[in-house]
Amino acid sequence: MSEVIEKAKRAKKAKDELVHQTTEYKNEALTLIAAALRAKQDVILEANEKDIAAGKEKGFSPALLDRLSLNPKRLSDIADAVILLTKLDDPVGESLETIQKENGLLIEKVRVPLGVVGMIYEARPNVTVDAATLCLKTGNACILRGSSSAINSNKALVSVIQEALETSKLPKDAVQLIEDTSKETAKQLFTLNDGLDVLIPRGGKNLIDMVVRESTVPVLETGAGNCHIFIDESAQSDMAQQVVINAKTQRPSVCNAIETVLIHENWAKRSVQELLQRLEKEGVEIRGDQAVCELLPSAVPAEALDWETEFLAPIVSVKTVRDVNEAIRHIHRYGTRHSEAIITEDDQNARYFLTSVDAAAVYHNASTRFTDGFEFGYGAEIGISTQKLHARGPMGLQALTSSKYIIKGNGQIRI
Amino acid sequence: MSEVIEKAKRAKKAKDELVHQTTEYKNEALTLIAAALRAKQDVILEANEKDIAAGKEKGFSPALLDRLSLNPKRLSDIADAVILLTKLDDPVGESLETIQKENGLLIEKVRVPLGVVGMIYEARPNVTVDAATLCLKTGNACILRGSSSAINSNKALVSVIQEALETSKLPKDAVQLIEDTSKETAKQLFTLNDGLDVLIPRGGKNLIDMVVRESTVPVLETGAGNCHIFIDESAQSDMAQQVVINAKTQRPSVCNAIETVLIHENWAKRSVQELLQRLEKEGVEIRGDQAVCELLPSAVPAEALDWETEFLAPIVSVKTVRDVNEAIRHIHRYGTRHSEAIITEDDQNARYFLTSVDAAAVYHNASTRFTDGFEFGYGAEIGISTQKLHARGPMGLQALTSSKYIIKGNGQIRI
Repeated sequence: MSEVIEKAKRAKKAKDELVHQTTEYKNEALTLIAAALRAKQDVILEANEKDIAAGKEKGFSPALLDRLSLNPKRLSDIADAVILLTKLDDPVGESLETIQKENGLLIEKVRVPLGVVGMIYEARPNVTVDAATLCLKTGNACILRGSSSAINSNKALVSVIQEALETSKLPKDAVQLIEDTSKETAKQLFTLNDGLDVLIPRGGKNLIDMVVRESTVPVLETGAGNCHIFIDESAQSDMAQQVVINAKTQRPSVCNAIETVLIHENWAKRSVQELLQRLEKEGVEIRGDQAVCELLPSAVPAEALDWETEFLAPIVSVKTVRDVNEAIRHIHRYGTRHSEAIITEDDQNARYFLTSVDAAAVYHNASTRFTDGFEFGYGAEIGISTQKLHARGPMGLQALTSSKYIIKGNGQIRI
Repeated sequence: MSEVIEKAKRAKKAKDELVHQTTEYKNEALTLIAAALRAKQDVILEANEKDIAAGKEKGFSPALLDRLSLNPKRLSDIADAVILLTKLDDPVGESLETIQKENGLLIEKVRVPLGVVGMIYEARPNVTVDAATLCLKTGNACILRGSSSAINSNKALVSVIQEALETSKLPKDAVQLIEDTSKETAKQLFTLNDGLDVLIPRGGKNLIDMVVRESTVPVLETGAGNCHIFIDESAQSDMAQQVVINAKTQRPSVCNAIETVLIHENWAKRSVQELLQRLEKEGVEIRGDQAVCELLPSAVPAEALDWETEFLAPIVSVKTVRDVNEAIRHIHRYGTRHSEAIITEDDQNARYFLTSVDAAAVYHNASTRFTDGFEFGYGAEIGISTQKLHARGPMGLQALTSSKYIIKGNGQIRI
């Protein structure tokens, strides 16, 4: 039996035990895991060093090596995050709807775990702990398939988690790692419809696209963010500049940072030079359309590809538009349905933009950087969904649950 | 440009108009459609006769011909159902969550249409009207791909709907039919991720399995129902018999009818003969395990395949089990996660069964036949979902919606 099939069988058994676990037992297990991560720090860091050494040998970039690295501080932060999870409300068991029928039937819709969650992800070993503990909190078993570059760290982390689970009321097989990181095991997970209830990819666009394309198991897609701000004719100059600078420069490497500014041609005439000079002062490279390049000689002429690129870097493409409709058309053509903003003093245009734009989060007079599970107050984040089924936008614990109708009667039959 | 690509482009435009429509305008369009279906009865029935004639020539079974047939009564019922839709609450615009942040940001999660819904379905022409009007009520554009056997009926129905839409405020292209019913057009829809927000298959298991396997567009799966009733040791004899007979015989051809009865061996010793004789009197063929066949000589010995077959006919497989755990194991092995029931006077066993069994609807002392959107009071039903993401169990209008975060500020930036 292959590793994937065997571990999927065990996960199924674990899942059947997990539905009977109380919130108390789940939180107890999380507390034990957090303690074990601290107690076994040396073992984990030693394993991580092997991955770092192997990565250096393979010529990984400093950025990639950094994402791969654990240290006492990072590990302690990871353990802290696990403790924070114990403080959050348990969504499982929540009553979503109650229907009392005239014939005496009581129909209740309650939140239940999804079952077995498959997770395919890249590099960062913190995702291993993150995914495992979010799943445990929501009563799900999980099968983790990380990348080969983090395999030693992942093995150490999962072994520490499993040891902690053995001292808890939860089954050890609730968290399992696929140790064979060949492409074959990923592909097996894609079509494991009998064993997995959902597959969640976390990583770059290529990974996510592959999972969406090849998986027959339902996928929770956490997508890329090619986000825009549209500065309308009536936008306050100061507010517009402040929001754009924040959304572009506060943390350019994340998905809710903006990549393109769309500017009403009349606002551009008034204030675009000031805005662009301030952006340049912040170290941002400007790629502009013709009108922008005429106003700012240092701007690079934007190429077709620039409108669809998620730079994730201090680069911004800037385009002037005639009106809100041209802005919306641009966003629908190039956007990734993540986060989109309008800066305007015109309430009618704001309403029109907020209704028209098809995205997980739409903003009026605020920075797109707020699209985040913690900022929204969910206390945890599985990712930001850019799909429309099941969950859209920042996903908290609820996104890892399903529902079930429980119907109680005393012999009712249908007539 | 192919028919699918061209119609998908038009649907996208229609979708962008539909998000601005009010409940009033949507209901007005539905009322116009219902009136048009009545006014154009002759044209529709004439087209339907062509399909029937072609079906007879191809040697369709009487059951299939019956599903394909329209007549004045059926068409009038279809129009009535459209009028009923106008009475239902519009889920679009509903506020699902409001978060007031300390920095003044107001975050609101609201229900929005899914966008463009693709529907792939078989024979019954009533699904054409059903799908189109459920989508319109929820502000979605739809692309319908019915089967070749109903093509004349479907063309006539969609042309009547589009004419009615032209006299309404809604765009005509909100409802479109793919007229080319070759396999090629179905396959094009499977991978139309840029044009479709969701794909809903309605029909037999083969169709649904193919869509799940081949579609990269997210699928709303409406699955088969291999449903069970477990009669526990303490079950009241009368209640158990009444519920089993209802769940098997009241309408055997539907997905929430049961296919297997699991019986605690001690209950079987007391009452199984009476139950089985009553079932036989209702014309039900019994396929039993060894214990059952010994008690009822007229029973046919069940083969392995019988436990996994959705008979959709007056046939039932019957198995004795040692306890609730054996019943649950059987259900998890052969069930399709649709509707499962326990008949028991033992509250602890009931709770254990309801929590353990992984299905969309679980029953204590009631017939599985209640799993139905109308019985649950939703006033409409898109289908019964046996998947766990997005919607599970009977799907009402809400299943055709997504959500969106609308965030209003006055210049907030993230620090």
